[in-house]
Amino acid sequence: MSKPLILVSNDDGYQAPGIRFLIEIAKTIGEVVVVAPQTAQSAMSHAITIKTPLLYKTVEISDNYREYNLNGTPVDCVKFAIHQLMDRKPDIVISGINHGSNASINIIYSGTMAAATEAAMGGIPSVGFSILDYNEDANFDYAKDYIIKIINKVLDDGLAENTALNVNFPKPDKGKYKGLKVCRQAKAYWKEDFDERFDPRNGKPYYWLKGTFTVHEDNNTTDEWALKNYYVSLVPIQFDFTAYNKIDELKYWETL
Amino acid sequence: MSKPLILVSNDDGYQAPGIRFLIEIAKTIGEVVVVAPQTAQSAMSHAITIKTPLLYKTVEISDNYREYNLNGTPVDCVKFAIHQLMDRKPDIVISGINHGSNASINIIYSGTMAAATEAAMGGIPSVGFSILDYNEDANFDYAKDYIIKIINKVLDDGLAENTALNVNFPKPDKGKYKGLKVCRQAKAYWKEDFDERFDPRNGKPYYWLKGTFTVHEDNNTTDEWALKNYYVSLVPIQFDFTAYNKIDELKYWETL
Repeated sequence: MSKPLILVSNDDGYQAPGIRFLIEIAKTIGEVVVVAPQTAQSAMSHAITIKTPLLYKTVEISDNYREYNLNGTPVDCVKFAIHQLMDRKPDIVISGINHGSNASINIIYSGTMAAATEAAMGGIPSVGFSILDYNEDANFDYAKDYIIKIINKVLDDGLAENTALNVNFPKPDKGKYKGLKVCRQAKAYWKEDFDERFDPRNGKPYYWLKGTFTVHEDNNTTDEWALKNYYVSLVPIQFDFTAYNKIDELKYWETL
Repeated sequence: MSKPLILVSNDDGYQAPGIRFLIEIAKTIGEVVVVAPQTAQSAMSHAITIKTPLLYKTVEISDNYREYNLNGTPVDCVKFAIHQLMDRKPDIVISGINHGSNASINIIYSGTMAAATEAAMGGIPSVGFSILDYNEDANFDYAKDYIIKIINKVLDDGLAENTALNVNFPKPDKGKYKGLKVCRQAKAYWKEDFDERFDPRNGKPYYWLKGTFTVHEDNNTTDEWALKNYYVSLVPIQFDFTAYNKIDELKYWETL
């Protein structure tokens, strides 16, 4: 039986510790192709490059392993991998391990999750992994078994059409995680307080985003609850933005 | 009674004909603040600027009208407007008129719709407008009455929490539109065929995204159907990515 074909990408760039760890896991499971951004692409969401040419570099070609990087966004990487660099569709796309949370509303800003979503849009089962730790030397050891089990489960059973998985790991500061929770996305909001600073050359103001994250509910069915209670969170996600329960309500607007 | 406060943004940049037209409409309805990107930001999705400073320029300050532009993404513009430039919350955020479709899955790539979504995330009713015409001299005249009616309706009745509206106008090549349809997002997919070209200096290849858009269904409840049949499409949208119908199915993974 041939090995499963695994595409790996991320948004922190090909040198980030998170993707290097994920690649090593993937290599133990199947044939691996890596197409990751050349530079950090955090908070790029589902952006694509349409105004500048895409260029890729080959990092390594060996038995069962090929690695490239691209001067684009995470979604560019997935599109370019699937439609340009790979001869056959991957059996799974995995993205991450992202440094920082993609739970709750963070998913909408996330390049890591956009890469997974783009794969699911193309009919390929996909999982995004994130850890709530920005440190370069974040400890992924407690996450490892979960990642292996989730990848194998997806390879064995597949995922429903148009579904990707958003998996987040708590900051690993209390030893082994308590388990896995299948959750929904918590309601939350980033309130931005812009930091005003001044250009030392001319005194003109400039601004940095400096948000405060507020979770609007404390409910044990959410990803934020799971993470706060030291569980790994898994949210099945989809990409139909329709607010179905509002269609009937608004139907009479057709005669405005 | 004080005039409603309207925030206007877009993703094509402050000079695009679409936003200029939308601003003129907004001025007839209320007090207007414009915060638009300095440069075209199409296909930026929900990206935010986190690695470079944000700088804004004041274009005009007059009675009931203030216009600024920002060196950021559409979502940056909305955040910066609400949390930095405006003294009170706008009564409505309108985004567009985008040149090009944001119907169906295009919404996920759209900066125009991301601006509207960001506003809705902050509890502000919002509408994104798009026209299926890339021409600089696109004819917005048939769209005008719909835009006025929709803005007034939202100002009068509000919108349900966490809901924004995605309004698309057909290419106006057959006279007056046939009417408005309240729809759901059609299932569709962009398949990318990358165009390979060669750098004339060194012969090295580079690539341009060159997608083919395929609608996967022909159903009269979708936005693509409405647009194809010369109706204005209106889709209520939300930003909870949870695939609720998959949570129970995956629950047993908690014991993997």
